Amino acid sequence: MNPSQGSDFIWPVRVYIEDTDAGGIVFYANYLKYMERARTERIRALGFSRLETIDPSVLFVVHSAQLRYHRPARLDDSLEVTADLADLRRTSMTFGQVVTHAGRGEKLVEGQIRVACIDRERMRPVAMPAALYQALQGTLKESVT
Amino acid sequence: MNPSQGSDFIWPVRVYIEDTDAGGIVFYANYLKYMERARTERIRALGFSRLETIDPSVLFVVHSAQLRYHRPARLDDSLEVTADLADLRRTSMTFGQVVTHAGRGEKLVEGQIRVACIDRERMRPVAMPAALYQALQGTLKESVT
Amino acid sequence: MNPSQGSDFIWPVRVYIEDTDAGGIVFYANYLKYMERARTERIRALGFSRLETIDPSVLFVVHSAQLRYHRPARLDDSLEVTADLADLRRTSMTFGQVVTHAGRGEKLVEGQIRVACIDRERMRPVAMPAALYQALQGTLKESVT
Amino acid sequence: MNPSQGSDFIWPVRVYIEDTDAGGIVFYANYLKYMERARTERIRALGFSRLETIDPSVLFVVHSAQLRYHRPARLDDSLEVTADLADLRRTSMTFGQVVTHAGRGEKLVEGQIRVACIDRERMRPVAMPAALYQALQGTLKESVT
Repeated sequence: MNPSQGSDFIWPVRVYIEDTDAGGIVFYANYLKYMERARTERIRALGFSRLETIDPSVLFVVHSAQLRYHRPARLDDSLEVTADLADLRRTSMTFGQVVTHAGRGEKLVEGQIRVACIDRERMRPVAMPAALYQALQGTLKESVT
Repeated sequence: MNPSQGSDFIWPVRVYIEDTDAGGIVFYANYLKYMERARTERIRALGFSRLETIDPSVLFVVHSAQLRYHRPARLDDSLEVTADLADLRRTSMTFGQVVTHAGRGEKLVEGQIRVACIDRERMRPVAMPAALYQALQGTLKESVT
Repeated sequence: MNPSQGSDFIWPVRVYIEDTDAGGIVFYANYLKYMERARTERIRALGFSRLETIDPSVLFVVHSAQLRYHRPARLDDSLEVTADLADLRRTSMTFGQVVTHAGRGEKLVEGQIRVACIDRERMRPVAMPAALYQALQGTLKESVT
Repeated sequence: MNPSQGSDFIWPVRVYIEDTDAGGIVFYANYLKYMERARTERIRALGFSRLETIDPSVLFVVHSAQLRYHRPARLDDSLEVTADLADLRRTSMTFGQVVTHAGRGEKLVEGQIRVACIDRERMRPVAMPAALYQALQGTLKESVT
């Protein structure tokens, strides 16, 4: 089964020469770019075109990331990137993300990315905007059902 | 105490505009670039100018990465990046890496990066070249003492 | 008039946080990524899924680039990138490329990129594969009409 | 003769895996990163640690770039990057920049980069801070002598 199946959101990514390295594969840091694109588009699909504009006093920063590289992606590969909400708290959201080779249905990279909400002035954790929290909660319910 | 102290290898990194993002901070994927530079220079300092040239049939690929972002680095910051060997096996090496703000001595990002040795043909785990293993073992002993 | 109009090929690009810098705008080198994507997709649209696979002995390398930055692109902007063939020779092709703000129809960046065909062994100019030359010639005729 | 000779400022750059692409060479956009680093360090060497802090109302943006790629840089290459002032006006400065292979003394890439001073509010050309203009003028005289 394609590892993307079962996810309610899939973002397609094409591998360009800019993404690869001299090993002929996608440079290991660049999967974090793909995952950030998928999270951004996931949030946009919920109606929030850009997190920073919801409440200018709140910053969204990555708190931690766990990455497991299974197989390399290569130039011109067509990929699918998921961004499922794995955990939701008032001050943070954690995404489980999988990068899959679209053609072969192979799982290439898995990541767990926790994004924290920070008060821009004091640089301390702060509750995310209520509208965003509610919208994200809706996606959690979906995935439980 | 500066978190870099106690490390037997420190690689200095300057933050340029290419590393930053519209949030005014270093983009979260780019710390993986800094860490790769430090690992490369650490290996070079052991006398191996480039891993791939030791034994062309062996590939070194990142197996997994754990990252914890404490505080952001900003444009023009002067950073210190460590690359301490945390674990050494015949077919992999794990580095504990810390990115520190050189001036303030603050820990910014911590990472644990496992690099696996792969047979280029079969894409299966393979023992790393003996000379490299021995040299790395020497650095493990150092850090215990 | 939207500067993309009149072009027979337009590649859409979304600006992500990875593309921006601490100035709040797209980092100046990254427009070369956008232009490379558009050239790649232009060639793909002609039926050549990847230049390197047409004839493995031929390399395609950028010979020169002229860039004129008019206005900056910003986070989340939706862009259009053209890749019109401006000049075609046996051993090189030159693309005229424009990056436009999709919503406002403003010209942001203009580039002229010459890509040369090189013999992989001798690293000397070599004629491009005939099938590619013919396909490209077809697009030149289109733009004259 | 090494093309860097005759320049009063040389910035060393090491090629890391992050800079390369699947062609085994440095990705063509990344030379613009190297050149930006050299310009930044050149300005820093004149005593201006960061352009933006001289006068917060003035932005420095790249106006145009001409690049000529002679030979590719490869993984682990040690490079030298110059940043000679080629032209100085009240509202802009143009740098002539050469990327040289340090070991072989070969010219790899040449660039001419014009940086414009912009009023942050009105986004119109504005005179650069007088202290910077004078310091830059000093380097022009040097190169004439």
